[in-house]
Amino acid sequence: MAPETRPRVVIVGAGFGGLSAARALAGAAVQVTVVDRRNFHLFQPLLYQVATAGLNPADIAWPIRSLLRDQANAEVVLGEVSGIERTAREVLLSDGRRLPYDYLVLATGATHNYFGHPEWEAVAPGLKRVDDATLIRRRVLLAFERAEASGDAETRRRQLSFVIIGGGPTGVEMAGAIAELARKALCRDFRHINPGDARIVLVEGGPRLLGSFPPALSDYAHRALTRMGVEVQLDRRVLACHEAGVETDAGPLPAATLIWAAGISASPAARWLVVAADRAGRVQVEDDLSVPGLPGVYAVGDTAALSIGGQPVPGIAPAAKQAGEHAARQILRSLAGAPSQPFRYRHHGNLATIGRHAAVIDFGRLRLRGGLAWLLWGLVHIYFLIGARNRLLVGGQWLFSYLTFGRGARLIAGSDPR
Amino acid sequence: MAPETRPRVVIVGAGFGGLSAARALAGAAVQVTVVDRRNFHLFQPLLYQVATAGLNPADIAWPIRSLLRDQANAEVVLGEVSGIERTAREVLLSDGRRLPYDYLVLATGATHNYFGHPEWEAVAPGLKRVDDATLIRRRVLLAFERAEASGDAETRRRQLSFVIIGGGPTGVEMAGAIAELARKALCRDFRHINPGDARIVLVEGGPRLLGSFPPALSDYAHRALTRMGVEVQLDRRVLACHEAGVETDAGPLPAATLIWAAGISASPAARWLVVAADRAGRVQVEDDLSVPGLPGVYAVGDTAALSIGGQPVPGIAPAAKQAGEHAARQILRSLAGAPSQPFRYRHHGNLATIGRHAAVIDFGRLRLRGGLAWLLWGLVHIYFLIGARNRLLVGGQWLFSYLTFGRGARLIAGSDPR
Repeated sequence: MAPETRPRVVIVGAGFGGLSAARALAGAAVQVTVVDRRNFHLFQPLLYQVATAGLNPADIAWPIRSLLRDQANAEVVLGEVSGIERTAREVLLSDGRRLPYDYLVLATGATHNYFGHPEWEAVAPGLKRVDDATLIRRRVLLAFERAEASGDAETRRRQLSFVIIGGGPTGVEMAGAIAELARKALCRDFRHINPGDARIVLVEGGPRLLGSFPPALSDYAHRALTRMGVEVQLDRRVLACHEAGVETDAGPLPAATLIWAAGISASPAARWLVVAADRAGRVQVEDDLSVPGLPGVYAVGDTAALSIGGQPVPGIAPAAKQAGEHAARQILRSLAGAPSQPFRYRHHGNLATIGRHAAVIDFGRLRLRGGLAWLLWGLVHIYFLIGARNRLLVGGQWLFSYLTFGRGARLIAGSDPR
Repeated sequence: MAPETRPRVVIVGAGFGGLSAARALAGAAVQVTVVDRRNFHLFQPLLYQVATAGLNPADIAWPIRSLLRDQANAEVVLGEVSGIERTAREVLLSDGRRLPYDYLVLATGATHNYFGHPEWEAVAPGLKRVDDATLIRRRVLLAFERAEASGDAETRRRQLSFVIIGGGPTGVEMAGAIAELARKALCRDFRHINPGDARIVLVEGGPRLLGSFPPALSDYAHRALTRMGVEVQLDRRVLACHEAGVETDAGPLPAATLIWAAGISASPAARWLVVAADRAGRVQVEDDLSVPGLPGVYAVGDTAALSIGGQPVPGIAPAAKQAGEHAARQILRSLAGAPSQPFRYRHHGNLATIGRHAAVIDFGRLRLRGGLAWLLWGLVHIYFLIGARNRLLVGGQWLFSYLTFGRGARLIAGSDPR
């Protein structure tokens, strides 16, 4: 079949789900087009380390073009999707381009959910994109600078207060990383303040941290964070976020730096398709990941809402990868005239790191915490980075941080819209 | 002497000159305050590699606070200087703070000079700061993306055209690095364009490239760039820079990406002091680097205009370092009641790299070009990086780029004011 007459598969989003779908189509008699508004694939699980000056953005990002360079049937389009023409079967880009498709995989990921308060985003940024991470890094580092520059005790206290909203893995990792930054990396760098005096508060709405983990590991994480000087507040509702801090149902938390790690909501894929979505905006899919009523259209990863046996598929990287591969296989089955198969999610486990020598791992039967879990967490993350270059860069910088307690990427660059 | 009664030395700028002045005062009975508007010291000689996606900003930057952490008599102030009160002997910061001084070292460096056309900066950014480098990286990478996305031959040609204005070391290095990016790193990543078709033009106003080097090395650089596919235009005057390209006295050069490597002018230190400056805005200093009529005030590096034996001291890192140390020594002599000494600049040599296996080195009697010069250039630059972490990160990334022809930091992040 000549390349130009091959069925066209358009994949929107080059995260874990979209990239694995594209790769699973390597060698197949299809034309694959991967669209993303960024030119790089991002390893989001380590983004919190960019936000806390431990790693560089490029250490955990790869140009999508390079990743698909050797896949002859794939091309990469840098562009922002503005809509989808269901009937004409075209993806619309904001610059007016149109990408016709025979099959469509929506792997657009998630964004933050401010529970109806989008105005909180300006003061309490979340952590999904590289630009979020460099913005948070800038704010965290500037807070210490402003505390050092101020002669006023009240200002200093406020600048040295950090509130992280949301006690899931991202919130726990951010709180632990900021605590280590303040108490170790920065501790001898200032003359008028002691960065170790920083107040770091982790606010969680539920009754325990890491709700997706077994309670014993939640308790461990709570104790480990407390030992590191993080103040954990459970069962707290956030009523408002503003320049001066957070209002909770238990009173105000004055702080100059707020970080949002609470809710996520899906990208607008369901709106583009005008199909049913759950409360978080995720597309309701059939058990084979196809979108009901739209033949040849699939949604994967954080874009899709799917429960298997009453258990929702979690919004983590391995689940997105498996879903991407499954969608690719269904496209190939459809082309071969074979019936589709239901998606079977294999859960390998949950991991979260808290700080030096402290992490939790839940592999079902195997549950680990402490130093060994921390070591395994590091090895797993290095393993899943793509390519020797990034493994060495991340591994090398971790080794240096471990030995010196330092953070290498302490740049206050760019400007802040705030 | 109690610390608070010690003479106060304020150093404005933590580049090569300011940092070496601060370090030369370690252990002395003075209070040192280093002011910079950025929180990091930047190794500017490698900034062009950030602009061409070879290195990360943090690989060539260090937090000033960390560098001076162990120097008990030094403190670091993050702030923008807005002026100097000569009579009250105070440095004014834009946020209203005032830093009183007994001695003042101005090491504020240089910025770009658009020869009376500041409006050119928006379309033809220079390369002095980290934000310049990430902006240029963004524009260079986006140009290839826009060429790939466009179906119009004219647009493609314009997007694949790059003009570098100024044939000194920075211009030569940028032209060579963009040529390698286009012809090697990106060559297999696109489907509709051949990045190797890129037109890269280096425009120089004088009769040869690298005017500060011996003519034989200029010729070599010219030939090496030509071999790499760079179009070198000598004796060309730039009449205008705009969105569509450059106008020269020999006709227009249509191009989407312009980079300014032509003129530099000093920071506003001379205006702050209301003292005599040369045409580039540099403070006219005495032979001991002091500013005439202002006892205890010194200017070093690109802030100062000084000729020794009719030869101007060049605006390179080693000269700034030596001047910073000299100013520090004069402060100590002044405190000891000793007369000041003239600055003696020891010129070690000039280096510039062109591309893989191609560089020029002029050590006076020893002149090198080609592969050996290129190797030496790399070793010298690794050697002058501060600390094992950055040496390993830069060295490791160079090794990977060398072996794979790839560039690791190909991120299009942030936004562009243009």
